[in-house]
Amino acid sequence: MSLAMNREELEDYMSQIFPQVSQDYSVQDLTEESIVMRLAVGDRHLRPGGTVSGPSMFGLADVSVYALILARRGQQSLAVTTGCSMDFMRKPDGNADLIARCTLLKLGKTLAVGDVLIFSEGSDKPVARATMTYSLPPEGSAAAAFG
Amino acid sequence: MSLAMNREELEDYMSQIFPQVSQDYSVQDLTEESIVMRLAVGDRHLRPGGTVSGPSMFGLADVSVYALILARRGQQSLAVTTGCSMDFMRKPDGNADLIARCTLLKLGKTLAVGDVLIFSEGSDKPVARATMTYSLPPEGSAAAAFG
Amino acid sequence: MSLAMNREELEDYMSQIFPQVSQDYSVQDLTEESIVMRLAVGDRHLRPGGTVSGPSMFGLADVSVYALILARRGQQSLAVTTGCSMDFMRKPDGNADLIARCTLLKLGKTLAVGDVLIFSEGSDKPVARATMTYSLPPEGSAAAAFG
Amino acid sequence: MSLAMNREELEDYMSQIFPQVSQDYSVQDLTEESIVMRLAVGDRHLRPGGTVSGPSMFGLADVSVYALILARRGQQSLAVTTGCSMDFMRKPDGNADLIARCTLLKLGKTLAVGDVLIFSEGSDKPVARATMTYSLPPEGSAAAAFG
Repeated sequence: MSLAMNREELEDYMSQIFPQVSQDYSVQDLTEESIVMRLAVGDRHLRPGGTVSGPSMFGLADVSVYALILARRGQQSLAVTTGCSMDFMRKPDGNADLIARCTLLKLGKTLAVGDVLIFSEGSDKPVARATMTYSLPPEGSAAAAFG
Repeated sequence: MSLAMNREELEDYMSQIFPQVSQDYSVQDLTEESIVMRLAVGDRHLRPGGTVSGPSMFGLADVSVYALILARRGQQSLAVTTGCSMDFMRKPDGNADLIARCTLLKLGKTLAVGDVLIFSEGSDKPVARATMTYSLPPEGSAAAAFG
Repeated sequence: MSLAMNREELEDYMSQIFPQVSQDYSVQDLTEESIVMRLAVGDRHLRPGGTVSGPSMFGLADVSVYALILARRGQQSLAVTTGCSMDFMRKPDGNADLIARCTLLKLGKTLAVGDVLIFSEGSDKPVARATMTYSLPPEGSAAAAFG
Repeated sequence: MSLAMNREELEDYMSQIFPQVSQDYSVQDLTEESIVMRLAVGDRHLRPGGTVSGPSMFGLADVSVYALILARRGQQSLAVTTGCSMDFMRKPDGNADLIARCTLLKLGKTLAVGDVLIFSEGSDKPVARATMTYSLPPEGSAAAAFG
Protein backbone atom coordinates (compact mmCIF):
# COMPACT_ATOMS: atom_id res chain seq x y z
CA MET A 1 0.00 0.00 0.00
CA SER A 2 1.32 3.40 -0.90
CA LEU A 3 0.26 6.82 -2.10
CA ALA A 4 -0.02 7.51 -5.83
CA MET A 5 0.24 11.27 -5.14
CA ASN A 6 1.81 13.15 -2.29
CA ARG A 7 0.22 16.20 -0.70
CA GLU A 8 1.59 18.75 -3.18
CA GLU A 9 0.67 16.64 -6.21
CA LEU A 10 -2.81 16.13 -4.80
CA GLU A 11 -3.42 19.85 -4.26
CA ASP A 12 -2.08 20.65 -7.74
CA TYR A 13 -4.35 18.09 -9.31
CA MET A 14 -7.40 19.24 -7.36
CA SER A 15 -6.82 22.83 -8.46
CA GLN A 16 -6.96 21.58 -12.06
CA ILE A 17 -10.12 19.55 -11.76
CA PHE A 18 -12.02 21.80 -9.32
CA PRO A 19 -10.83 25.30 -10.27
CA GLN A 20 -13.90 27.05 -8.85
CA VAL A 21 -13.65 25.68 -5.34
CA SER A 22 -10.12 24.37 -4.84
CA GLN A 23 -8.95 27.59 -3.20
CA ASP A 24 -11.45 26.92 -0.39
CA TYR A 25 -9.78 23.65 0.54
CA SER A 26 -6.28 22.79 1.69
CA VAL A 27 -4.77 19.46 2.62
CA GLN A 28 -3.36 19.67 6.14
CA ASP A 29 -2.11 16.13 6.42
CA LEU A 30 -2.09 13.01 4.25
CA THR A 31 -1.25 9.40 5.00
CA GLU A 32 -2.16 6.16 3.25
CA GLU A 33 -5.16 5.74 5.54
CA SER A 34 -6.24 9.28 6.34
CA ILE A 35 -6.45 12.89 5.27
CA VAL A 36 -7.02 16.14 7.15
CA MET A 37 -8.72 18.81 5.03
CA ARG A 38 -9.36 22.45 5.91
CA LEU A 39 -12.27 24.50 4.61
CA ALA A 40 -11.43 28.21 4.73
CA VAL A 41 -14.84 29.42 5.88
CA GLY A 42 -16.01 32.57 4.09
CA ASP A 43 -19.27 34.45 3.73
CA ARG A 44 -20.57 32.14 1.04
CA HIS A 45 -20.38 29.18 3.41
CA LEU A 46 -22.50 30.81 6.10
CA ARG A 47 -26.21 30.75 6.66
CA PRO A 48 -28.42 32.93 8.83
CA GLY A 49 -27.35 32.76 12.46
CA GLY A 50 -23.66 32.97 11.63
CA THR A 51 -23.16 29.26 11.30
CA VAL A 52 -21.77 27.17 8.46
CA SER A 53 -24.35 25.80 6.03
CA GLY A 54 -25.17 22.14 5.61
CA PRO A 55 -24.19 22.08 1.91
CA SER A 56 -20.76 23.48 2.87
CA MET A 57 -20.25 20.63 5.34
CA PHE A 58 -21.49 18.09 2.81
CA GLY A 59 -19.06 19.50 0.24
CA LEU A 60 -16.15 19.33 2.68
CA ALA A 61 -16.89 15.71 3.56
CA ASP A 62 -17.18 14.76 -0.11
CA VAL A 63 -14.00 16.56 -1.16
CA SER A 64 -12.06 15.00 1.71
CA VAL A 65 -12.85 11.40 0.88
CA TYR A 66 -12.60 12.02 -2.87
CA ALA A 67 -9.13 13.53 -2.42
CA LEU A 68 -7.96 10.60 -0.31
CA ILE A 69 -9.14 8.14 -2.96
CA LEU A 70 -7.30 10.18 -5.60
CA ALA A 71 -4.13 10.17 -3.51
CA ARG A 72 -4.32 6.41 -3.21
CA ARG A 73 -5.35 5.46 -6.73
CA GLY A 74 -3.96 8.29 -8.84
CA GLN A 75 -5.35 10.66 -11.41
CA GLN A 76 -7.18 8.11 -13.49
CA SER A 77 -9.52 7.45 -10.58
CA LEU A 78 -12.64 9.49 -11.15
CA ALA A 79 -14.76 8.07 -8.38
CA VAL A 80 -18.50 8.77 -8.37
CA THR A 81 -20.25 9.58 -5.07
CA THR A 82 -23.08 7.09 -4.64
CA GLY A 83 -24.12 7.61 -1.03
CA CYS A 84 -23.84 9.79 2.01
CA SER A 85 -25.02 9.72 5.60
CA MET A 86 -24.43 12.68 7.89
CA ASP A 87 -25.27 13.63 11.46
CA PHE A 88 -25.17 17.27 12.48
CA MET A 89 -24.39 17.36 16.18
CA ARG A 90 -23.29 20.85 17.15
CA LYS A 91 -23.48 24.33 15.69
CA PRO A 92 -20.29 25.20 13.79
CA ASP A 93 -18.58 28.46 14.67
CA GLY A 94 -19.03 30.79 11.68
CA ASN A 95 -15.78 32.56 12.59
CA ALA A 96 -13.60 29.45 12.53
CA ASP A 97 -12.41 27.26 9.67
CA LEU A 98 -13.70 23.72 9.48
CA ILE A 99 -11.31 20.80 9.81
CA ALA A 100 -12.30 17.41 8.38
CA ARG A 101 -10.53 14.28 9.61
CA CYS A 102 -11.17 11.47 7.16
CA THR A 103 -10.34 7.77 7.31
CA LEU A 104 -10.70 5.30 4.47
CA LEU A 105 -12.56 2.24 5.78
CA LYS A 106 -12.54 0.41 2.48
CA LEU A 107 -10.88 0.86 -0.88
CA GLY A 108 -12.01 -2.10 -2.93
CA LYS A 109 -11.98 -2.72 -6.64
CA THR A 110 -15.34 -1.12 -7.28
CA LEU A 111 -16.43 0.44 -3.97
CA ALA A 112 -14.84 2.84 -1.48
CA VAL A 113 -16.12 3.96 1.93
CA GLY A 114 -14.74 6.87 3.94
CA ASP A 115 -15.62 8.19 7.39
CA VAL A 116 -15.31 11.89 8.23
CA LEU A 117 -15.43 13.87 11.45
CA ILE A 118 -15.78 17.65 11.06
CA PHE A 119 -14.61 20.11 13.72
CA SER A 120 -14.61 23.88 14.08
CA GLU A 121 -10.91 24.69 14.35
CA GLY A 122 -9.86 24.85 17.98
CA SER A 123 -12.60 22.54 19.29
CA ASP A 124 -12.31 18.82 19.95
CA LYS A 125 -16.06 18.19 19.81
CA PRO A 126 -17.19 17.22 16.31
CA VAL A 127 -19.86 19.43 14.70
CA ALA A 128 -20.76 16.70 12.21
CA ARG A 129 -19.93 13.23 11.05
CA ALA A 130 -20.29 11.78 7.58
CA THR A 131 -19.86 8.51 5.77
CA MET A 132 -19.40 8.80 2.01
CA THR A 133 -19.52 5.89 -0.45
CA TYR A 134 -18.12 5.85 -3.98
CA SER A 135 -18.32 3.74 -7.08
CA LEU A 136 -14.84 3.26 -8.57
CA PRO A 137 -14.02 2.94 -12.27
CA PRO A 138 -12.60 -0.38 -13.42
CA GLU A 139 -8.87 -0.36 -14.08
CA GLY A 140 -8.04 1.35 -17.33
CA SER A 141 -11.31 3.24 -17.72
CA ALA A 142 -11.57 6.96 -17.18
CA ALA A 143 -14.53 7.23 -14.87
CA ALA A 144 -16.99 5.24 -12.83
CA ALA A 145 -20.56 5.05 -13.96
CA PHE A 146 -23.61 5.16 -11.75
CA GLY A 147 -23.77 1.38 -11.21
CA MET B 1 -54.17 19.05 10.16
CA SER B 2 -53.77 22.18 8.10
CA LEU B 3 -51.19 24.53 6.64
CA ALA B 4 -49.93 27.48 8.68
CA MET B 5 -48.76 29.20 5.48
CA ASN B 6 -49.91 28.85 1.92
CA ARG B 7 -47.54 28.76 -1.04
CA GLU B 8 -47.22 32.54 -1.45
CA GLU B 9 -46.70 33.15 2.26
CA LEU B 10 -44.09 30.42 2.36
CA GLU B 11 -42.10 31.85 -0.57
CA ASP B 12 -42.29 35.35 0.94
CA TYR B 13 -41.02 34.12 4.25
CA MET B 14 -38.21 32.09 2.72
CA SER B 15 -37.02 35.13 0.76
CA GLN B 16 -36.73 36.96 4.08
CA ILE B 17 -34.82 34.28 5.95
CA PHE B 18 -32.66 33.00 3.07
CA PRO B 19 -32.12 36.15 0.95
CA GLN B 20 -28.92 34.86 -0.68
CA VAL B 21 -30.37 31.66 -2.08
CA SER B 22 -34.14 32.02 -2.14
CA GLN B 23 -34.18 33.13 -5.78
CA ASP B 24 -32.77 29.71 -6.70
CA TYR B 25 -35.77 27.91 -5.27
CA SER B 26 -39.46 28.05 -6.08
CA VAL B 27 -42.37 26.16 -4.62
CA GLN B 28 -44.21 24.34 -7.41
CA ASP B 29 -46.84 22.67 -5.28
CA LEU B 30 -47.75 22.49 -1.62
CA THR B 31 -50.13 20.27 0.32
CA GLU B 32 -50.33 19.32 3.97
CA GLU B 33 -48.28 16.21 3.31
CA SER B 34 -45.99 17.18 0.46
CA ILE B 35 -44.12 19.88 -1.38
CA VAL B 36 -42.61 20.11 -4.85
CA MET B 37 -39.59 22.43 -5.01
CA ARG B 38 -37.67 23.57 -8.10
CA LEU B 39 -33.99 24.44 -8.14
CA ALA B 40 -33.21 26.79 -11.05
CA VAL B 41 -29.90 25.21 -12.04
CA GLY B 42 -27.21 27.78 -12.87
CA ASP B 43 -23.47 27.73 -13.37
CA ARG B 44 -22.75 27.83 -9.66
CA HIS B 45 -24.61 24.55 -9.15
CA LEU B 46 -22.56 22.66 -11.72
CA ARG B 47 -19.38 20.68 -11.35
CA PRO B 48 -16.93 19.44 -13.97
CA GLY B 49 -18.64 17.16 -16.47
CA GLY B 50 -21.69 19.41 -16.77
CA THR B 51 -23.62 17.79 -13.98
CA VAL B 52 -25.17 19.23 -10.83
CA SER B 53 -22.97 19.14 -7.73
CA GLY B 54 -23.67 17.04 -4.65
CA PRO B 55 -23.87 20.06 -2.32
CA SER B 56 -26.53 21.59 -4.61
CA MET B 57 -28.63 18.45 -4.33
CA PHE B 58 -28.11 18.30 -0.57
CA GLY B 59 -29.18 21.95 -0.32
CA LEU B 60 -32.30 21.31 -2.40
CA ALA B 61 -33.32 18.35 -0.23
CA ASP B 62 -32.75 20.32 2.97
CA VAL B 63 -34.64 23.40 1.77
CA SER B 64 -37.56 21.29 0.58
CA VAL B 65 -38.20 19.52 3.87
CA TYR B 66 -37.43 22.66 5.88
CA ALA B 67 -39.99 24.62 3.85
CA LEU B 68 -42.65 21.97 4.30
CA ILE B 69 -42.11 21.97 8.07
CA LEU B 70 -42.40 25.79 8.02
CA ALA B 71 -45.61 25.61 6.03
CA ARG B 72 -47.07 23.20 8.56
CA ARG B 73 -45.87 24.76 11.80
CA GLY B 74 -45.53 28.43 10.92
CA GLN B 75 -42.82 31.05 11.18
CA GLN B 76 -41.83 30.34 14.75
CA SER B 77 -40.60 26.93 13.74
CA LEU B 78 -36.86 27.18 13.27
CA ALA B 79 -36.10 23.50 12.84
CA VAL B 80 -32.48 22.33 13.04
CA THR B 81 -31.24 19.70 10.59
CA THR B 82 -29.83 16.80 12.62
CA GLY B 83 -29.37 14.09 10.03
CA CYS B 84 -29.31 13.25 6.36
CA SER B 85 -28.95 10.16 4.24
CA MET B 86 -28.69 10.42 0.46
CA ASP B 87 -28.23 8.05 -2.44
CA PHE B 88 -27.01 9.40 -5.77
CA MET B 89 -28.36 7.13 -8.45
CA ARG B 90 -28.09 8.83 -11.83
CA LYS B 91 -26.21 11.75 -13.31
CA PRO B 92 -28.31 14.93 -13.26
CA ASP B 93 -28.65 16.82 -16.52
CA GLY B 94 -26.71 20.08 -16.13
CA ASN B 95 -29.05 21.78 -18.60
CA ALA B 96 -32.26 20.98 -16.74
CA ASP B 97 -33.68 22.30 -13.48
CA LEU B 98 -33.95 19.91 -10.56
CA ILE B 99 -37.37 19.04 -9.15
CA ALA B 100 -37.60 17.75 -5.58
CA ARG B 101 -40.70 15.84 -4.49
CA CYS B 102 -40.86 15.76 -0.72
CA THR B 103 -43.15 13.92 1.69
CA LEU B 104 -43.33 14.43 5.43
CA LEU B 105 -43.19 10.99 7.10
CA LYS B 106 -43.31 12.34 10.63
CA LEU B 107 -43.98 15.70 12.22
CA GLY B 108 -43.79 15.04 15.94
CA LYS B 109 -43.39 17.36 18.87
CA THR B 110 -39.60 17.32 18.80
CA LEU B 111 -38.63 15.38 15.66
CA ALA B 112 -39.51 15.59 11.97
CA VAL B 113 -38.57 13.25 9.13
CA GLY B 114 -38.97 14.00 5.43
CA ASP B 115 -38.29 11.91 2.34
CA VAL B 116 -37.20 13.51 -0.94
CA LEU B 117 -36.87 12.27 -4.49
CA ILE B 118 -34.94 14.54 -6.87
CA PHE B 119 -35.47 14.48 -10.65
CA SER B 120 -33.97 16.32 -13.58
CA GLU B 121 -36.96 18.12 -15.06
CA GLY B 122 -38.53 16.04 -17.80
CA SER B 123 -37.30 12.69 -16.52
CA ASP B 124 -39.23 10.23 -14.34
CA LYS B 125 -36.12 8.43 -13.08
CA PRO B 126 -34.84 9.93 -9.82
CA VAL B 127 -31.26 11.21 -9.82
CA ALA B 128 -31.11 11.10 -6.02
CA ARG B 129 -33.07 10.32 -2.91
CA ALA B 130 -32.69 11.84 0.54
CA THR B 131 -34.10 11.49 4.02
CA MET B 132 -33.67 14.54 6.23
CA THR B 133 -34.29 14.62 9.99
CA TYR B 134 -34.88 17.70 12.12
CA SER B 135 -35.00 18.67 15.75
CA LEU B 136 -38.00 20.90 16.42
CA PRO B 137 -38.17 23.71 18.96
CA PRO B 138 -40.58 23.27 21.85
CA GLU B 139 -43.79 25.29 21.56
CA GLY B 140 -43.18 28.91 22.31
CA SER B 141 -39.41 28.90 21.88
CA ALA B 142 -37.71 30.49 18.91
CA ALA B 143 -35.42 27.76 17.75
CA ALA B 144 -34.47 24.15 18.26
CA ALA B 145 -31.15 23.36 19.83
CA PHE B 146 -28.80 20.59 18.86
CA GLY B 147 -30.28 18.00 21.23
CA MET C 1 -39.12 -4.57 -18.17
CA SER C 2 -40.72 -7.64 -16.74
CA LEU C 3 -40.60 -10.03 -13.81
CA ALA C 4 -38.27 -13.04 -13.91
CA MET C 5 -40.37 -14.73 -11.18
CA ASN C 6 -43.98 -14.32 -10.21
CA ARG C 7 -45.17 -14.26 -6.63
CA GLU C 8 -45.44 -18.01 -6.19
CA GLU C 9 -42.07 -18.69 -7.78
CA LEU C 10 -40.51 -16.03 -5.59
CA GLU C 11 -41.91 -17.48 -2.37
CA ASP C 12 -40.85 -20.99 -3.39
CA TYR C 13 -37.34 -19.83 -4.11
CA MET C 14 -37.06 -17.86 -0.88
CA SER C 15 -38.13 -20.90 1.13
CA GLN C 16 -35.23 -22.79 -0.47
CA ILE C 17 -32.56 -20.18 0.18
CA PHE C 18 -33.79 -18.92 3.56
CA PRO C 19 -35.33 -22.05 5.12
CA GLN C 20 -34.92 -20.81 8.71
CA VAL C 21 -36.81 -17.55 8.30
CA SER C 22 -38.92 -17.83 5.17
CA GLN C 23 -42.00 -18.89 7.10
CA ASP C 24 -41.93 -15.48 8.83
CA TYR C 25 -42.34 -13.63 5.56
CA SER C 26 -45.01 -13.67 2.91
CA VAL C 27 -45.32 -11.71 -0.31
CA GLN C 28 -48.61 -9.82 -0.31
CA ASP C 29 -48.20 -8.10 -3.65
CA LEU C 30 -45.60 -7.96 -6.40
CA THR C 31 -45.23 -5.71 -9.41
CA GLU C 32 -42.24 -4.81 -11.57
CA GLU C 33 -41.59 -1.75 -9.43
CA SER C 34 -42.78 -2.73 -5.98
CA ILE C 35 -43.36 -5.44 -3.44
CA VAL C 36 -45.48 -5.67 -0.31
CA MET C 37 -44.05 -8.06 2.29
CA ARG C 38 -45.62 -9.19 5.56
CA LEU C 39 -43.67 -10.16 8.67
CA ALA C 40 -45.75 -12.48 10.86
CA VAL C 41 -44.75 -10.98 14.21
CA GLY C 42 -44.06 -13.60 16.88
CA ASP C 43 -42.44 -13.65 20.29
CA ARG C 44 -38.94 -13.82 18.90
CA HIS C 45 -39.44 -10.48 17.10
CA LEU C 46 -40.43 -8.63 20.26
CA ARG C 47 -38.35 -6.73 22.73
CA PRO C 48 -39.19 -5.54 26.25
CA GLY C 49 -42.15 -3.18 26.17
CA GLY C 50 -44.10 -5.35 23.76
CA THR C 51 -42.78 -3.69 20.63
CA VAL C 52 -41.01 -5.14 17.60
CA SER C 53 -37.22 -5.13 17.77
CA GLY C 54 -34.96 -3.08 15.51
CA PRO C 55 -33.19 -6.12 14.06
CA SER C 56 -36.59 -7.54 13.06
CA MET C 57 -37.42 -4.35 11.18
CA PHE C 58 -33.97 -4.28 9.58
CA GLY C 59 -34.46 -7.89 8.48
CA LEU C 60 -37.86 -7.15 7.01
CA ALA C 61 -36.53 -4.19 5.02
CA ASP C 62 -33.60 -6.23 3.73
CA VAL C 63 -35.69 -9.25 2.76
CA SER C 64 -38.23 -7.03 0.98
CA VAL C 65 -35.75 -5.31 -1.32
CA TYR C 66 -33.74 -8.49 -1.82
CA ALA C 67 -36.88 -10.36 -2.88
CA LEU C 68 -37.86 -7.63 -5.33
CA ILE C 69 -34.41 -7.72 -6.93
CA LEU C 70 -34.70 -11.52 -7.19
CA ALA C 71 -38.11 -11.23 -8.80
CA ARG C 72 -36.73 -8.84 -11.37
CA ARG C 73 -33.39 -10.47 -12.14
CA GLY C 74 -34.04 -14.14 -11.43
CA GLN C 75 -32.42 -16.81 -9.33
CA GLN C 76 -28.87 -16.19 -10.44
CA SER C 77 -28.96 -12.77 -8.80
CA LEU C 78 -27.33 -13.13 -5.40
CA ALA C 79 -27.18 -9.46 -4.49
CA VAL C 80 -25.02 -8.38 -1.53
CA THR C 81 -26.35 -5.76 0.88
CA THR C 82 -23.81 -2.92 1.00
CA GLY C 83 -25.67 -0.17 2.82
CA CYS C 84 -28.69 0.71 4.89
CA SER C 85 -30.21 3.83 6.37
CA MET C 86 -33.23 3.62 8.63
CA ASP C 87 -35.37 6.00 10.62
CA PHE C 88 -37.53 4.66 13.43
CA MET C 89 -40.47 6.99 13.80
CA ARG C 90 -43.19 5.33 15.84
CA LYS C 91 -43.47 2.38 18.18
CA PRO C 92 -44.65 -0.73 16.35
CA ASP C 93 -47.61 -2.57 17.81
CA GLY C 94 -46.30 -5.87 19.16
CA ASN C 95 -49.71 -7.47 18.55
CA ALA C 96 -49.87 -6.63 14.84
CA ASP C 97 -47.94 -7.96 11.87
CA LEU C 98 -45.59 -5.60 10.07
CA ILE C 99 -46.23 -4.68 6.46
CA ALA C 100 -43.33 -3.42 4.33
CA ARG C 101 -44.07 -1.45 1.16
CA CYS C 102 -40.96 -1.41 -1.00
CA THR C 103 -40.15 0.44 -4.22
CA LEU C 104 -37.10 -0.12 -6.40
CA LEU C 105 -35.55 3.28 -7.15
CA LYS C 106 -32.70 1.91 -9.19
CA LEU C 107 -31.79 -1.45 -10.66
CA GLY C 108 -28.55 -0.85 -12.53
CA LYS C 109 -25.93 -3.22 -13.79
CA THR C 110 -23.94 -3.28 -10.57
CA LEU C 111 -25.99 -1.31 -8.04
CA ALA C 112 -29.58 -1.46 -6.77
CA VAL C 113 -31.39 0.91 -4.40
CA GLY C 114 -34.73 0.22 -2.75
CA ASP C 115 -36.91 2.32 -0.47
CA VAL C 116 -39.10 0.75 2.21
CA LEU C 117 -41.89 2.02 4.42
CA ILE C 118 -42.88 -0.25 7.31
CA PHE C 119 -46.33 -0.14 8.93
CA SER C 120 -48.04 -1.98 11.74
CA GLU C 121 -50.94 -3.68 10.02
CA GLY C 122 -54.05 -1.52 10.23
CA SER C 123 -52.22 1.79 10.59
CA ASP C 124 -51.39 4.26 7.82
CA LYS C 125 -48.58 5.96 9.77
CA PRO C 126 -45.20 4.37 9.05
CA VAL C 127 -43.30 3.00 12.05
CA ALA C 128 -40.02 3.07 10.13
CA ARG C 129 -38.46 3.85 6.79
CA ALA C 130 -35.39 2.28 5.21
CA THR C 131 -33.23 2.61 2.16
CA MET C 132 -31.20 -0.47 1.26
CA THR C 133 -28.39 -0.59 -1.30
CA TYR C 134 -26.99 -3.69 -2.98
CA SER C 135 -24.03 -4.71 -5.07
CA LEU C 136 -25.14 -6.87 -7.98
CA PRO C 137 -23.16 -9.71 -9.53
CA PRO C 138 -22.04 -9.25 -13.13
CA GLU C 139 -24.05 -11.19 -15.66
CA GLY C 140 -23.12 -14.86 -15.68
CA SER C 141 -21.47 -14.92 -12.24
CA ALA C 142 -23.06 -16.52 -9.25
CA ALA C 143 -22.77 -13.81 -6.65
CA ALA C 144 -21.74 -10.24 -6.06
CA ALA C 145 -18.59 -9.56 -4.13
CA PHE C 146 -18.06 -6.81 -1.60
CA GLY C 147 -16.81 -4.22 -4.11
CA MET D 1 -17.78 13.27 33.11
CA SER D 2 -17.91 9.85 34.68
CA LEU D 3 -19.59 6.48 34.39
CA ALA D 4 -22.87 5.83 36.17
CA MET D 5 -22.26 2.06 35.95
CA ASN D 6 -19.07 0.08 35.69
CA ARG D 7 -18.67 -2.94 33.45
CA GLU D 8 -20.06 -5.48 35.91
CA GLU D 9 -23.04 -3.30 36.83
CA LEU D 10 -23.74 -2.72 33.15
CA GLU D 11 -23.72 -6.44 32.29
CA ASP D 12 -25.93 -7.21 35.28
CA TYR D 13 -28.42 -4.58 34.27
CA MET D 14 -28.48 -5.68 30.64
CA SER D 15 -29.17 -9.27 31.68
CA GLN D 16 -32.24 -7.97 33.54
CA ILE D 17 -33.64 -5.85 30.73
CA PHE D 18 -32.68 -8.09 27.80
CA PRO D 19 -32.90 -11.58 29.27
CA GLN D 20 -33.43 -13.31 25.90
CA VAL D 21 -30.32 -11.99 24.21
CA SER D 22 -27.96 -10.79 26.92
CA GLN D 23 -26.01 -14.05 26.97
CA ASP D 24 -25.01 -13.34 23.35
CA TYR D 25 -23.23 -10.12 24.29
CA SER D 26 -20.37 -9.37 26.62
CA VAL D 27 -18.68 -6.09 27.43
CA GLN D 28 -14.96 -6.40 26.70
CA ASP D 29 -13.97 -2.88 27.63
CA LEU D 30 -15.70 0.26 28.89
CA THR D 31 -14.52 3.85 29.23
CA GLU D 32 -16.40 7.13 29.45
CA GLU D 33 -16.10 7.58 25.70
CA SER D 34 -16.10 4.07 24.32
CA ILE D 35 -17.20 0.49 24.67
CA VAL D 36 -16.02 -2.78 23.13
CA MET D 37 -18.78 -5.37 22.82
CA ARG D 38 -18.48 -9.01 21.75
CA LEU D 39 -21.21 -10.96 19.99
CA ALA D 40 -20.74 -14.69 20.57
CA VAL D 41 -21.65 -15.83 17.06
CA GLY D 42 -23.86 -18.93 17.01
CA ASP D 43 -25.96 -20.72 14.45
CA ARG D 44 -28.89 -18.36 14.83
CA HIS D 45 -26.71 -15.40 13.75
CA LEU D 46 -25.65 -17.04 10.49
CA ARG D 47 -27.17 -16.88 7.07
CA PRO D 48 -26.61 -19.08 4.02
CA GLY D 49 -23.00 -18.94 2.93
CA GLY D 50 -21.69 -19.24 6.48
CA THR D 51 -21.59 -15.52 7.13
CA VAL D 52 -23.19 -13.43 9.88
CA SER D 53 -26.59 -11.97 9.04
CA GLY D 54 -27.30 -8.27 8.64
CA PRO D 55 -29.88 -8.20 11.47
CA SER D 56 -27.25 -9.69 13.81
CA MET D 57 -24.82 -6.90 12.95
CA PHE D 58 -27.56 -4.29 13.32
CA GLY D 59 -28.42 -5.72 16.73
CA LEU D 60 -24.80 -5.67 17.84
CA ALA D 61 -24.38 -2.03 16.80
CA ASP D 62 -27.59 -1.02 18.55
CA VAL D 63 -26.80 -2.89 21.78
CA SER D 64 -23.29 -1.43 21.88
CA VAL D 65 -24.33 2.22 21.72
CA TYR D 66 -27.35 1.62 23.93
CA ALA D 67 -25.13 0.03 26.58
CA LEU D 68 -22.65 2.90 26.46
CA ILE D 69 -25.45 5.43 26.93
CA LEU D 70 -26.73 3.37 29.89
CA ALA D 71 -23.25 3.26 31.43
CA ARG D 72 -23.00 7.01 31.17
CA ARG D 73 -26.49 8.04 32.21
CA GLY D 74 -27.57 5.22 34.49
CA GLN D 75 -30.53 2.89 34.69
CA GLN D 76 -33.21 5.50 34.31
CA SER D 77 -32.03 6.21 30.78
CA LEU D 78 -34.27 4.26 28.43
CA ALA D 79 -33.06 5.71 25.17
CA VAL D 80 -35.10 5.11 22.00
CA THR D 81 -33.30 4.29 18.74
CA THR D 82 -34.40 6.85 16.15
CA GLY D 83 -31.94 6.31 13.31
CA CYS D 84 -29.29 4.08 11.87
CA SER D 85 -26.93 4.14 8.93
CA MET D 86 -24.76 1.14 8.14
CA ASP D 87 -22.24 0.14 5.51
CA PHE D 88 -21.42 -3.52 4.99
CA MET D 89 -17.90 -3.68 3.65
CA ARG D 90 -16.56 -7.21 3.99
CA LYS D 91 -17.98 -10.66 4.57
CA PRO D 92 -17.87 -11.58 8.26
CA ASP D 93 -16.29 -14.89 9.16
CA GLY D 94 -19.08 -17.17 10.36
CA ASN D 95 -16.61 -19.04 12.58
CA ALA D 96 -15.40 -15.98 14.50
CA ASP D 97 -17.10 -13.80 17.07
CA LEU D 98 -17.88 -10.21 16.14
CA ILE D 99 -16.23 -7.36 18.02
CA ALA D 100 -17.88 -3.93 18.00
CA ARG D 101 -15.81 -0.87 18.86
CA CYS D 102 -18.13 2.00 19.70
CA THR D 103 -17.49 5.68 20.37
CA LEU D 104 -19.99 8.20 21.65
CA LEU D 105 -19.83 11.30 19.42
CA LYS D 106 -22.55 13.17 21.24
CA LEU D 107 -24.48 12.71 24.45
CA GLY D 108 -26.74 15.73 24.65
CA LYS D 109 -29.82 16.40 26.70
CA THR D 110 -32.24 14.89 24.19
CA LEU D 111 -30.06 13.32 21.47
CA ALA D 112 -27.18 10.86 21.42
CA VAL D 113 -25.04 9.72 18.48
CA GLY D 114 -22.66 6.76 18.51
CA ASP D 115 -20.28 5.40 15.88
CA VAL D 116 -19.51 1.70 15.64
CA LEU D 117 -16.92 -0.35 13.77
CA ILE D 118 -17.53 -4.11 13.64
CA PHE D 119 -14.73 -6.63 13.14
CA SER D 120 -14.51 -10.40 12.89
CA GLU D 121 -12.29 -11.33 15.82
CA GLY D 122 -8.68 -11.55 14.74
CA SER D 123 -9.00 -9.20 11.76
CA ASP D 124 -8.21 -5.48 11.70
CA LYS D 125 -10.35 -4.76 8.64
CA PRO D 126 -13.88 -3.72 9.61
CA VAL D 127 -16.72 -5.84 8.21
CA ALA D 128 -19.24 -3.06 8.84
CA ARG D 129 -19.67 0.41 10.22
CA ALA D 130 -22.75 1.94 11.82
CA THR D 131 -23.95 5.22 13.21
CA MET D 132 -26.85 4.96 15.63
CA THR D 133 -28.92 7.90 16.90
CA TYR D 134 -31.13 7.95 20.00
CA SER D 135 -33.78 10.11 21.55
CA LEU D 136 -33.14 10.52 25.27
CA PRO D 137 -35.78 10.85 27.98
CA PRO D 138 -35.92 14.15 29.85
CA GLU D 139 -34.42 14.05 33.33
CA GLY D 140 -36.76 12.35 35.75
CA SER D 141 -38.89 10.54 33.20
CA ALA D 142 -38.64 6.83 32.62
CA ALA D 143 -38.32 6.63 28.88
CA ALA D 144 -37.88 8.65 25.74
CA ALA D 145 -40.75 8.97 23.36
CA PHE D 146 -40.56 8.87 19.57
CA GLY D 147 -40.12 12.63 19.15
